[in-house]
Amino acid sequence: MPDSDEPRETVADIGEFGLIGRVTAGRRQPATTLLGPGDDAAVVAAADGRVVASTDVLVEGVHFRMDWSTPEHVGRKAIAVNMADVAAMGAVPTALLVGLACPKSTDAGVAEALAAGMWQEAARAGAGLVGGDVVAADQIVISVTALGDLEGRAPVTRGGAMPGDVVAVCGRLGWSAAGLAVLGRGFRSPVTVVGAYRAPEPPYPAGPQAALAGATAMIDVSDGLLADLAHIAEESSVAIDVRTSLVQVHQRLVEVASALGADARHWVLTGGEDHALAATFPDPREVPDGWVTIGTVGRGGGVTVDGLPYEKPPGWQHWR
Amino acid sequence: MPDSDEPRETVADIGEFGLIGRVTAGRRQPATTLLGPGDDAAVVAAADGRVVASTDVLVEGVHFRMDWSTPEHVGRKAIAVNMADVAAMGAVPTALLVGLACPKSTDAGVAEALAAGMWQEAARAGAGLVGGDVVAADQIVISVTALGDLEGRAPVTRGGAMPGDVVAVCGRLGWSAAGLAVLGRGFRSPVTVVGAYRAPEPPYPAGPQAALAGATAMIDVSDGLLADLAHIAEESSVAIDVRTSLVQVHQRLVEVASALGADARHWVLTGGEDHALAATFPDPREVPDGWVTIGTVGRGGGVTVDGLPYEKPPGWQHWR
Repeated sequence: MPDSDEPRETVADIGEFGLIGRVTAGRRQPATTLLGPGDDAAVVAAADGRVVASTDVLVEGVHFRMDWSTPEHVGRKAIAVNMADVAAMGAVPTALLVGLACPKSTDAGVAEALAAGMWQEAARAGAGLVGGDVVAADQIVISVTALGDLEGRAPVTRGGAMPGDVVAVCGRLGWSAAGLAVLGRGFRSPVTVVGAYRAPEPPYPAGPQAALAGATAMIDVSDGLLADLAHIAEESSVAIDVRTSLVQVHQRLVEVASALGADARHWVLTGGEDHALAATFPDPREVPDGWVTIGTVGRGGGVTVDGLPYEKPPGWQHWR
Repeated sequence: MPDSDEPRETVADIGEFGLIGRVTAGRRQPATTLLGPGDDAAVVAAADGRVVASTDVLVEGVHFRMDWSTPEHVGRKAIAVNMADVAAMGAVPTALLVGLACPKSTDAGVAEALAAGMWQEAARAGAGLVGGDVVAADQIVISVTALGDLEGRAPVTRGGAMPGDVVAVCGRLGWSAAGLAVLGRGFRSPVTVVGAYRAPEPPYPAGPQAALAGATAMIDVSDGLLADLAHIAEESSVAIDVRTSLVQVHQRLVEVASALGADARHWVLTGGEDHALAATFPDPREVPDGWVTIGTVGRGGGVTVDGLPYEKPPGWQHWR
């Protein structure tokens, strides 16, 4: 039953240009936004002479559920997953472009709240929301492109890990998976894990920090720690071994897993969507503050856990 | 009835990474692509110290119909509409990032053909396809972000037109609208206009050309000539008058309009999606080759045709 008999204002009521006007009015842009929204294209500073760029698409019912997250959370998440990719190259996020496809009947307030969440997360990294497009579709689809600045450094790819390196992570692991498990059972708390699912908080500055510290390879953990380390192993033609004795499993995850009859360590090893950063460093003493060493790089290929293949499915792919 | 009893291979069969592998394998990147697809993010040259960026989203059933266009056409169109925005700033397109949301049951060949069309159109402008994302959704949604290089020039916005300027256009007007009208009546020919609807061919080099010639304002004609000139009029706080005696209506459009009982001039004045470029120049003698002067800029506001308000609805907006 609706809260009142007042007709809701839909995105169709205010129109494409009306919505764009509302979600951009009065917003402050960082100095890197040389020309913001409203023209055919934006102009963003790229002082380095290069620009880092990444695109992700989030689909209602696949990547988020409007009954499990507020629109602000969904907006924050859409921005976070992209800026984490930029950080994982060792770059500083500078600008974001957003495509929003949604049904004509979408409450205008929902669209505005989505945008508010996007602005909030962009501001957390100092990036501008410089352009976008709004179109009608059957289901909410959010596409985001994040741009970033390498500040003169070489990009840290997935392909530079060397035997003898150590593997380290920065940021949360398993929290989003725990939150998803909680929501899937029909619960709404504890809010710490549910909030981690709704809107991850990637450690953006840790990307450039790792690059400065000499990281040889880096990735953001979107599909799960083991699945994403497997990308580094493959691209670098190395073997990676994760030591479970080094992997922190937060007490809160242990409690939640216990209540649900789940395995907290499995969440930590395979849960995606926290967008922690994982990187390899040549020297254990060079691993920066805030990073935790969790394993080693050796000759060969693939990812092992305590020297053995991990037995549960590592991460997931769409359509599989 | 299917063509054969062989089971089709779907995007679900080959998986997200399988599809990305197929559509990127063996493709050549331009020199501006410093790091192409396959890592967390791409790295693109931005020698100018700035990057131009624009995003558009195309939705099946709204912006294209798979029964009216081949997947190659849809791919070409998705890229063209974005690169036209970059050109309309006076920039050269350098790189594209693509988000593809499609049903799990989508034929893998359709997805590959979409990508082939994208590569084809990107190559036409010398730009690279540097990154992307593929996700499951109920309907095909294609989001594209185009990046571009201003080569040291100031961006040509919508806001610089001055009273006394002339208005000129480069590229086709009304052809896509004619093609849409033909398809809407159930016909498939003439292929010239139907092809213009399926895949516009924006005159990319005309954007930098106009900037070099001193264009004071520029826009790509996506919503219709009068609607898009109205954006220049509003952002520049000027009045624009279009002289119909100067607006070329191609004989082919006259023939098609005659056959359908439609008004070819209306298509030219209000039909969108050809992605011609419209610009203002201070001096009629500075209008570059290939551009056609069609009107004048004066004091005041709004767009008139031969000094009078245009009586039919100028262009269209989503949701309206």
